[in-house]
Amino acid sequence: MKEIRILGVDTSLRSTGVGVVASAGSRQRAVTWGVIKNPAQRPHTECLAHLHRELGRLLQAEEPVAVAVEGVFFSKNVRTAVTLGQARGVVLAVCALARVPVYEYAPRSVKQAVVGNGNAHKEQVGRMVALLLGLSEPPAEDAADALALAIAHIHQQRLGLAAGKPL
Amino acid sequence: MKEIRILGVDTSLRSTGVGVVASAGSRQRAVTWGVIKNPAQRPHTECLAHLHRELGRLLQAEEPVAVAVEGVFFSKNVRTAVTLGQARGVVLAVCALARVPVYEYAPRSVKQAVVGNGNAHKEQVGRMVALLLGLSEPPAEDAADALALAIAHIHQQRLGLAAGKPL
Repeated sequence: MKEIRILGVDTSLRSTGVGVVASAGSRQRAVTWGVIKNPAQRPHTECLAHLHRELGRLLQAEEPVAVAVEGVFFSKNVRTAVTLGQARGVVLAVCALARVPVYEYAPRSVKQAVVGNGNAHKEQVGRMVALLLGLSEPPAEDAADALALAIAHIHQQRLGLAAGKPL
Repeated sequence: MKEIRILGVDTSLRSTGVGVVASAGSRQRAVTWGVIKNPAQRPHTECLAHLHRELGRLLQAEEPVAVAVEGVFFSKNVRTAVTLGQARGVVLAVCALARVPVYEYAPRSVKQAVVGNGNAHKEQVGRMVALLLGLSEPPAEDAADALALAIAHIHQQRLGLAAGKPL
């Protein structure tokens, strides 16, 4: 059975989690995961360019058939929303330029898919991601969230449910 | 005297104004201007990819030494802020990847530089842009705003003032 690869992306300006999960039938495994970091002193434009380059490389190297991202976080702070929006815009554009479809999942539905509880804590998500993918320990938090997004997408598809909201 | 070119970008998801102004000493002229449009039914990801491609082409063709963008608009609506942020992130990343520095100007300071009044109306901005650049009629509103941003940047530099906030 052919493996398909899904890339999860947990977007932020300074620390974007990424994780690729391969799925074949009922099996799934973690292919690669990590965090695209931008140091605090780096100007926003350079952060966005770095995110662009790193994500572009990852898409090219891993060839996922779909990308799963988090639904828009409803910050109360407009400046924070613009900053997150900027990083998110880069992620969406890079995926669209590479012709990889992007699906959006609410944080609650990701926790539901991975832990079975929409109100699960971060630590529970990390532990379940490690368990489901056979990792010896939970990955860094942002990477775990990215892997969880990929698992949630695979889970939805396996159940024959409509996938997340296509963007 | 060598001409330098400044690109102004008035960013939005559906209708991004762009305008290149060339400046040599006290003379300035409009090189090219227009609007990067995305139809209402086009998905966000495709809009962002289109903006990315068109802006990349413009930078390559016109070789501006700097890009002037509007300071963040303080929307009260977080969803609007995220959508604008996404388009803005693409603009900033494309410029950074092309190694063209980006400067940010508050709408008020652009109107002050172009019309001499920080509270000027849109129509006044369009008329003054046409007058300053020797155009027979005001350009489309978004393109006029983009040309105004470029003029404001040139104006700041000519006065030996610190340019807008570098991003």
